[in-house]
Amino acid sequence: MSEKLSTQPYKGTRDFYPQDMRLRNWFFGVIRNVLETSAFDEYNGPMLESLDIYAAKSGEEIANKQTYNFLDRADRRLAIRPEMTPTVARMVAGKMGELTFPLKWFSIPNMYRYEATQRGRLREFWQLNVDIFGCDTYEADLEVIESAIRIMTAYGADESMFTVRINNRRFFNDVIAVIANTDADTAKKVSKVIDRKNKVPRESYERDLIDLGLDEEQIERIDELYKMNVTEATALCPDSQGSQELRDLFDALEKTGLAKYCVFDFGIIRGLDYYTGTVFEVFDNAPENNRAMFGGGRYDNLVGLFVKNAKISGVGYGMGDVTLENFLYTHNLVPETLGAGVKVLVTRFGDVPYEHYLNTVDTLRRAGIVSSVYLGTKKFGKQIDFAVKEGYTHVIIIGGDELARGIVKMKDLSTREERELTLDEAIEILKK
Amino acid sequence: MSEKLSTQPYKGTRDFYPQDMRLRNWFFGVIRNVLETSAFDEYNGPMLESLDIYAAKSGEEIANKQTYNFLDRADRRLAIRPEMTPTVARMVAGKMGELTFPLKWFSIPNMYRYEATQRGRLREFWQLNVDIFGCDTYEADLEVIESAIRIMTAYGADESMFTVRINNRRFFNDVIAVIANTDADTAKKVSKVIDRKNKVPRESYERDLIDLGLDEEQIERIDELYKMNVTEATALCPDSQGSQELRDLFDALEKTGLAKYCVFDFGIIRGLDYYTGTVFEVFDNAPENNRAMFGGGRYDNLVGLFVKNAKISGVGYGMGDVTLENFLYTHNLVPETLGAGVKVLVTRFGDVPYEHYLNTVDTLRRAGIVSSVYLGTKKFGKQIDFAVKEGYTHVIIIGGDELARGIVKMKDLSTREERELTLDEAIEILKK
Repeated sequence: MSEKLSTQPYKGTRDFYPQDMRLRNWFFGVIRNVLETSAFDEYNGPMLESLDIYAAKSGEEIANKQTYNFLDRADRRLAIRPEMTPTVARMVAGKMGELTFPLKWFSIPNMYRYEATQRGRLREFWQLNVDIFGCDTYEADLEVIESAIRIMTAYGADESMFTVRINNRRFFNDVIAVIANTDADTAKKVSKVIDRKNKVPRESYERDLIDLGLDEEQIERIDELYKMNVTEATALCPDSQGSQELRDLFDALEKTGLAKYCVFDFGIIRGLDYYTGTVFEVFDNAPENNRAMFGGGRYDNLVGLFVKNAKISGVGYGMGDVTLENFLYTHNLVPETLGAGVKVLVTRFGDVPYEHYLNTVDTLRRAGIVSSVYLGTKKFGKQIDFAVKEGYTHVIIIGGDELARGIVKMKDLSTREERELTLDEAIEILKK
Repeated sequence: MSEKLSTQPYKGTRDFYPQDMRLRNWFFGVIRNVLETSAFDEYNGPMLESLDIYAAKSGEEIANKQTYNFLDRADRRLAIRPEMTPTVARMVAGKMGELTFPLKWFSIPNMYRYEATQRGRLREFWQLNVDIFGCDTYEADLEVIESAIRIMTAYGADESMFTVRINNRRFFNDVIAVIANTDADTAKKVSKVIDRKNKVPRESYERDLIDLGLDEEQIERIDELYKMNVTEATALCPDSQGSQELRDLFDALEKTGLAKYCVFDFGIIRGLDYYTGTVFEVFDNAPENNRAMFGGGRYDNLVGLFVKNAKISGVGYGMGDVTLENFLYTHNLVPETLGAGVKVLVTRFGDVPYEHYLNTVDTLRRAGIVSSVYLGTKKFGKQIDFAVKEGYTHVIIIGGDELARGIVKMKDLSTREERELTLDEAIEILKK
C-alpha cells in the first residue's frame, strides 16, 4: 500500500475526539437527567430497519430518497434509520399486550439522512425522541411540551432565548371550515394552500384561495388569525375540540409558570397528513438565527401500521443534536470548564520501583479520584508538560527521597503550590 | 394499507425496551466509571466509513464479506463499521500533530457484522474499545490488561470466574526460531502451522511440521510450551525482547496483586499478521461456557495506513456487549434491583385543580426526586395498579381534604404504610 487513505470522515459525519465527546456527554447528560427525573424511560432500537416501515409512514419516494438503503444478501431492502418514530411504533405494537399505558419514553439514537449538508444539517446526527403513548388528552401534550422547556432551561436558556410556538390541528381544520364556510373536501384544499403560504408569492396564495371560492374578506380573516392570541383565536370556533384543547393547555401553562416560554401561533402546521392535535415548534430567538429548532405534536395511531384496529395515540417531538448545539453556542450556554474535575498524574522517576507508582494510583482510583501514572520514561519537565496539556489538575511526585520518607509531594497545577503530604492526606484534599 | 408490517426487529438486531435499556445503561455505566477514573478519554466516530479502511487492514475479501456495504449516490463504497480500530487509527492519523501522546482512549460504539447469528454473536452489537497509543513499552500493555481486570471485578467477578491468558508475539516468533532452528522464512511457515494447531487433526499438524523439516523431538518441545509457566517458557530464549516484555509484565502483575487473574498461555496467538507484541484473551471459567470472551494486544503502526512514515504503536482490546452480558448472567452478576431508586407517582382526583398536581410534581423534581403525575382520569385503584406495575416506590395522594388541610398522604408501596405529611416532610423522607 503506497497510496495513503484519507483521514477525513465521510461527508456529513463527524469524528468525536475526547474534547468533543466530553461536550456530547454533558449535552446528553443534561437531557437524561431532566427526563429521568420526570420518570421518562429510555429505550433504543436497531440502526437498520426494513425500508417498508419508513415507506408506510412517509411514502415510498421520500423513504427511498431520504435514506441510505440497500439490499441484504437475502434480498431484504434495509434502511439506516432516518428517524425513530417508525421504530418506536413497531416496538410499542410488538408488546402492546404487555406494556402498561400511558408510556413515557425517550431515546437518543444516532441516525442517517441522505441529504445536502448545510449549517444545522448533517448526514449523521443524534436525535432526542420524547413520546407519550396511550394518553389522549391535553395533559400528555402539556407534559411533552414541559419536558422540552425543562431541557432548555436546564442548559441555562431563558425566555429571551427561545419560544415554544403552539397550534392545534383540530382547531386549524375547524376554524378554516368556519371561515371558508364550505364543504369538508374544499376545506381540506384550503388547508393545503394555507400550509404553503410562506413558500409561495402572496399573489398566487390569494389566487389559489379565490379559485377555491373564498372572497377577500375571508382571506383577510385568515390573515388576522396569525396575529391573534389563543383567547381571540379559539373564540372563532368556541365549540371545537381543538379550541378546548388549546384553552386547557394554555390555562395549565399559565398556572404552572410556563406561559412565559409559549405563544399561540397559527403559522405552526407541520406535516399535514401526520399530526392530528396539538402541534408545536421551539424557536431560537437569536436575531441571526431566528428559526424553528425542533418540534412535534400529537399523532394518532402510528401503531396501526403494525397491528390491525390498534388505537394508541402518541404525542412527542424529536430534537436534533446539531441544531441544539448551534443554539447553545449562539447563546453562550456551553460551560468553559466542561469535565474539569480533579485529575491527578503520578509522575515517574527511575529510582523508584514502578509498582510503587502503580499501587499509589490504584489507591487513588479506589478513592474515586481520576488518576494515571505517567506512561513512559521522559524527563520530569516533559511529564509536567504532558499533565498541563492533558488537563490534569494535580501532580503527585514520588522520588527516592519521598519514598524513603513515606510521603508524597503534591503540586496543584493551577496555583503551582507544592506540599509534602502523606498519601491519605493528599486523598482527603483531592476529594474536597 | 391492509397488509400489516412486521413488529420483529431485523434479524440479528435487538429492541431495547426500558427494562433492557436500564440493563445497558448500568452495563456501560460500570465500564465508563472504571475507565474514566483511570483517566481514559472517551471518543466516537461515524457509523459509516469508506470500505477502503477495512480492506486496507483485513483484505478486500474479508472486508466485503463481513460488512454491510453499498455505494452512495456519488459512487463511494461505504461500509457500516464492523469494528472500531480503523476509525480510531484514522482519527489519530488525522490529528497526529495536535494530540499529546501517549493517548488513553476508549469508545463504546454500535457496529454491524454480516454473519450467521448464534449465541454470543449478533449482527448489531456494541463493543467497548480500549487503546493506548504512543507508548512502546510493557507499561501500556499492563495498563490495558489492568483496565480489563478492573472492569470485570467492578461487575463483581472474581478470579474463579475469569482468567486473562497472556502470550507475546515477539517471544512466540523467537522461541519458534530457536526450537525449529531454521531460517526466518521457514520459521514463519512453522508459525502458521502452529496457529492452526487446534483447527486441524493432530496427525496433519505433525505432518505439516515434519514437511517443514522439524523432527519429533522438536515437535515435542513445542508441545511442552503449552504446559509451561512464564519463567520456564522465557528461559528457552532469555535474550528475546519478547521474553523481557513477558517477564516485566508478569513481574508487575505479581507486585500489584493482579497475578491471580492471569496466566501465561502459549496457545494465545490471535491474528498472525496483525499483532506484534503482547497478546491476551479473557476467558470465561464457567465449565459450560469455557471460552475466550474477548481479547487484544499490541499492534504496530496501524496509523501508517493513513500517514507516510508514521510510527505510532498501539495496544488495546475490544469487548462485545453480547458476550459480556452472557458472562454476567452465567455468573449471576446482574443485580436484581437495577434502576430501583425512589420513584413517586402523584395520583389524581377530579376535585383538585390539575395545576396543583403539576406544581407538586415540579417541586419533587426540583428536589431531584424521580416523579410523575398520573396521566389520565382512571379510578384511584387503577392508578395504584399502574404505579405498582411501573416500578413506582411511593404514591403521593392529594384529595380535596388534603388540599384544604395543606398536607399530602404518602404511601410506601413496599411496606403499604401510609402517612400524612407536609410536602416538605415527604421530600425529606424521600431524599433519604
